[in-house]
Amino acid sequence: MTKTRVGIINVTGYAGVELARLLSQHPEVQLVTATGRSAAGQKLGKVFPHLSALDMVVQSQPGEADLVFSAMPHKESAIEIVPLLQRGVRVVDISADFRLRQPGAYPEWYGFEHPAPHLLEEAVYGLPELYRSRIAPARLIANPGCYPTSAILALAPAVRAGLVSDVIFDSKSGVSGAGRSLSLGTHYSEVNEDVSAYALGGHRHLPEIVQELGLLRPEQPPAVTFVPHLIPMTRGILTTAYASLPPGSIAAGDRGLDEIKALYHDFYRGEPFVRVADAPPHTKHTWGSNYCLVYPTLDRRTGRLIVISCIDNLVKGAAGQAIQNMNLMLGLPETTGLQAPAVYP
Amino acid sequence: MTKTRVGIINVTGYAGVELARLLSQHPEVQLVTATGRSAAGQKLGKVFPHLSALDMVVQSQPGEADLVFSAMPHKESAIEIVPLLQRGVRVVDISADFRLRQPGAYPEWYGFEHPAPHLLEEAVYGLPELYRSRIAPARLIANPGCYPTSAILALAPAVRAGLVSDVIFDSKSGVSGAGRSLSLGTHYSEVNEDVSAYALGGHRHLPEIVQELGLLRPEQPPAVTFVPHLIPMTRGILTTAYASLPPGSIAAGDRGLDEIKALYHDFYRGEPFVRVADAPPHTKHTWGSNYCLVYPTLDRRTGRLIVISCIDNLVKGAAGQAIQNMNLMLGLPETTGLQAPAVYP
Amino acid sequence: MTKTRVGIINVTGYAGVELARLLSQHPEVQLVTATGRSAAGQKLGKVFPHLSALDMVVQSQPGEADLVFSAMPHKESAIEIVPLLQRGVRVVDISADFRLRQPGAYPEWYGFEHPAPHLLEEAVYGLPELYRSRIAPARLIANPGCYPTSAILALAPAVRAGLVSDVIFDSKSGVSGAGRSLSLGTHYSEVNEDVSAYALGGHRHLPEIVQELGLLRPEQPPAVTFVPHLIPMTRGILTTAYASLPPGSIAAGDRGLDEIKALYHDFYRGEPFVRVADAPPHTKHTWGSNYCLVYPTLDRRTGRLIVISCIDNLVKGAAGQAIQNMNLMLGLPETTGLQAPAVYP
Amino acid sequence: MTKTRVGIINVTGYAGVELARLLSQHPEVQLVTATGRSAAGQKLGKVFPHLSALDMVVQSQPGEADLVFSAMPHKESAIEIVPLLQRGVRVVDISADFRLRQPGAYPEWYGFEHPAPHLLEEAVYGLPELYRSRIAPARLIANPGCYPTSAILALAPAVRAGLVSDVIFDSKSGVSGAGRSLSLGTHYSEVNEDVSAYALGGHRHLPEIVQELGLLRPEQPPAVTFVPHLIPMTRGILTTAYASLPPGSIAAGDRGLDEIKALYHDFYRGEPFVRVADAPPHTKHTWGSNYCLVYPTLDRRTGRLIVISCIDNLVKGAAGQAIQNMNLMLGLPETTGLQAPAVYP
Repeated sequence: MTKTRVGIINVTGYAGVELARLLSQHPEVQLVTATGRSAAGQKLGKVFPHLSALDMVVQSQPGEADLVFSAMPHKESAIEIVPLLQRGVRVVDISADFRLRQPGAYPEWYGFEHPAPHLLEEAVYGLPELYRSRIAPARLIANPGCYPTSAILALAPAVRAGLVSDVIFDSKSGVSGAGRSLSLGTHYSEVNEDVSAYALGGHRHLPEIVQELGLLRPEQPPAVTFVPHLIPMTRGILTTAYASLPPGSIAAGDRGLDEIKALYHDFYRGEPFVRVADAPPHTKHTWGSNYCLVYPTLDRRTGRLIVISCIDNLVKGAAGQAIQNMNLMLGLPETTGLQAPAVYP
Repeated sequence: MTKTRVGIINVTGYAGVELARLLSQHPEVQLVTATGRSAAGQKLGKVFPHLSALDMVVQSQPGEADLVFSAMPHKESAIEIVPLLQRGVRVVDISADFRLRQPGAYPEWYGFEHPAPHLLEEAVYGLPELYRSRIAPARLIANPGCYPTSAILALAPAVRAGLVSDVIFDSKSGVSGAGRSLSLGTHYSEVNEDVSAYALGGHRHLPEIVQELGLLRPEQPPAVTFVPHLIPMTRGILTTAYASLPPGSIAAGDRGLDEIKALYHDFYRGEPFVRVADAPPHTKHTWGSNYCLVYPTLDRRTGRLIVISCIDNLVKGAAGQAIQNMNLMLGLPETTGLQAPAVYP
Repeated sequence: MTKTRVGIINVTGYAGVELARLLSQHPEVQLVTATGRSAAGQKLGKVFPHLSALDMVVQSQPGEADLVFSAMPHKESAIEIVPLLQRGVRVVDISADFRLRQPGAYPEWYGFEHPAPHLLEEAVYGLPELYRSRIAPARLIANPGCYPTSAILALAPAVRAGLVSDVIFDSKSGVSGAGRSLSLGTHYSEVNEDVSAYALGGHRHLPEIVQELGLLRPEQPPAVTFVPHLIPMTRGILTTAYASLPPGSIAAGDRGLDEIKALYHDFYRGEPFVRVADAPPHTKHTWGSNYCLVYPTLDRRTGRLIVISCIDNLVKGAAGQAIQNMNLMLGLPETTGLQAPAVYP
Repeated sequence: MTKTRVGIINVTGYAGVELARLLSQHPEVQLVTATGRSAAGQKLGKVFPHLSALDMVVQSQPGEADLVFSAMPHKESAIEIVPLLQRGVRVVDISADFRLRQPGAYPEWYGFEHPAPHLLEEAVYGLPELYRSRIAPARLIANPGCYPTSAILALAPAVRAGLVSDVIFDSKSGVSGAGRSLSLGTHYSEVNEDVSAYALGGHRHLPEIVQELGLLRPEQPPAVTFVPHLIPMTRGILTTAYASLPPGSIAAGDRGLDEIKALYHDFYRGEPFVRVADAPPHTKHTWGSNYCLVYPTLDRRTGRLIVISCIDNLVKGAAGQAIQNMNLMLGLPETTGLQAPAVYP
């Protein structure tokens, strides 16, 4: 059987190179083309020695492929994707360019006029736990951001159930989420032994979270506060979600906690990559894997719902989720090529 | 002039050894005695090579001193302190043993009956920004916990002003806060490249935060949620505080933010170790120093107050604050021996 | 076809849990039993959440298996292994108990009399690059230590060629090499932001290196200096090997370097897991994988041979190499279950 | 008494900002001017919040001062320094521009023709342990590099005694040694969980080491191999020095080790910042301080001398040593402003 031919646009960023790593182990597809501007013409194994076995040359333009992942920065990604779609190539876009449904959100949050607003309606938000059936037939997937993946999965059950209307996401991210570009904010000596909050005026992932939580409960879209933090590690996002529960919305005491746990177990029953944890999870438990661990609990003293979620920002938060979407699009078992457990310690 | 003679009980923990470091540079006192159980009889410089210049021997019992710092674990600290007080020695207790005013809180939160409940009323909570005048004449100071220092300083202005009634503290701490004792939770390979929330059922620092915020606003003690997180660094706590503001409590838009900033600047005016920052602070800006950086802002979309605070958990969160208290008790300028800026990077 | 049933003794150490991770992805064997003293009776997924999918219970005694990996500490490993061999179970021993051929080396270096000295001759040193043909039929494999793997692979070509007779290995190891047991030396706050040399009086891996380099050149066994260092990372060993080249042993200038490179390329031609690198390698290029990168070069000014080698100490330095040995023992392709590239970044 | 006025050229690099930190605590001098190209016109406390208390503005040109530290990159430093010397300002140059005595070394190692070769003879190499008496009256000090400081102090006693003639320095450095400029090699996600050797073709600090060791033993200048490594920490250099001892040069067995130790203790007797350690030192024992720890030992099996040295690369390896030199130049006690112990943990 011929394997599906897949390609990566911008293999030289962290999402791109993680795609290459995971695709190199995928039994049903073949990575046939990968582009990268600065490294065009070089052997992939020279840029990324851990991928020497792939024996590919980084290209300046993508070659023929049946499905392409774009790991370009926003704005540029849309420009690359439009002609591919026109040629009949299916696309999973890891950038933000097709995540927001309102064209006006792009000038506001990303500072550019969207070059293909007509595609925003067609694009499917690639969170399989919410949109599995729509992902399968899609030709354009907007792969979720890393923070939104951790935030939405943390509170989706409670929001859909109408339990919460005002939510706070306090997220702690490893540095790879900031990408491979150089900046003082990712300089080792600045980040090591440091933690800071950033984007307090509004992070670009906020409208994405607001949109998706709102779609889960259109009659009562929750108000959202989101504060991201940078912590000294390479991979991983832990999001702590806080939400008040209206009086009487759940039973008192332990029974209320049981109700919450049952709600989460029901919501994620059968999900191959979301596990409702019995104890507070660690990002290390997801390191290098496509798993998301979710731990709901109650603050007894205040009656507040607290949910912890953990992902690897480069896998479930980017490349792994993109491949999960690809599997759905190709009619493959959803977990194909993604079953490796986390690397611990 | 004779220098005041000071001692350290349990110099071999991280708070104790940090006291020794800072006291060795203090111009007005002399460290004359230091105890440590496991290391008794050894040269201090053998246990802690960076303190070789002190040329002291770790003792099993404290020698004569005018003022003693206890860095013993809780419960044991109280037992050590009582006879010292009886001998007329003034004490700064870094443990939790005299922080809570209700004797009943000790069985509930620390699992022991308090051995000297009559001292709980006398002891002064050693947060100079709140209790400066009472600290000066005290003979027993309950030095605040690291998390409470960061949490209380973050919201004290807003609580005292009656602006907030329901607050969340999401704290991120370096590993030294867990002490020098061995546990899997402080094992390098477990903590490195990891972040986790812990003590979701209620951390021992919670009643301390609740007590002090309540005393700031007895007529309306705020409800408190507190979730600590462990992140892969040695020193530092960043606390992100969230609190809803009642409608109309501040002006709309930028003017509201100006009001909040003015409130914080007024509250901390003249404070030598609290600085209201103009930009989101980093724990690295406080590394090794006694400073606390506080950054208040508003989440425009939800009207929520967000305040970031940063400290070095071993300095302003423990040993440095203890020396600040000592300076007040001895009538010295409050900043004596504590003016070193943070070590960066 | 029935899969080979394999077991792990002491799954709760880092080598053991890494074996479980890798075996869980191995297509030709089935992990059927795993022991662990402190965790006996618990679900494996409770002790190690990343292995929840395995759905195993940690046992106190190993169940039936065709081949068993022992990840017990030295001395105890031999005691566990002898009865297994008697029952006809093939064994890969990750401890040091069968690595040294001289029984007298055990009291000297490990402080115990060897309980089964008759097996020392039978046991095969499990470095496939040197002993592949003897590994295949063996019933007892002594899996090499992490430092010896990195040291021997760095200089084996030069030693066998008789080029070097006096060698220095300066090794830098991540902390997981010290295991999961608790000690001040693996406490996060002690190790983070620190580097130190240790075992300057002679590390236990020294006799293993001496033995194997000596066997490569029995007529001229090289003198060996070995200094291990602990650096603040979880996984990885980089060994820098230094050896003087006798005058005239290689050509002058660039041609000499070409000779050295050719020697290394010839020696490792066809090796699936050793790659002679074109540029100085990083341990990160091997993180989580079974690869060893070797980079030989010359110090032009002194004519000295310098070779850098990089491995993941838990994979090629322990669990991965053990599975590589198992593959050879079972007649499987040597790379089965071990082809995953390093996880980067 | 009027304090000596000092200035810093290029305060915005790591050596410059560390100078500012240390000078801000120095009781006998006043930092009156600091330049920085990119940050000119900004408040120093805005660029470096930990220095807010200094209340200075970064300038584009240095103002009046009695003594100036240059922390400019090489080549540019010389250009800045020449006019200062002409105006009678004394200078401590932290760059490499006046460290090498042979003008021809600059084109070879640094790629530029030296603009002021006549000053190379006058400049004094600012390693107080070797050149104290010449530093005091000098008007131009060439402050040593970080690696050379650690390497020379490790072997100076043995080289001067004529014990060693062929030496290897294997150095492990934190990332701050690479400066504050942006590069992929200092990007957090690339450096974290990684170790690598670099500059195998010859690091720029090599000729400096060769020069100074040669001057210690002109009749028998040792051959030098030097390999630097980058490890994932911010501050600190540990150098492991290896040198064969000629047969009979020291007594056999323990007495030989005693001789070596006595040699080192004699050489460094009375040195305020070099301590001969009794146990293998850690860089953490020097973190943030001006101390150098040196630990000499013998490899009994090979008779090789091994010496470990530890420094903080930004203090004894840069800014602290520069201030030590300044103290000597100004006739102050050499330790003024430099006595703070390391910050641990």
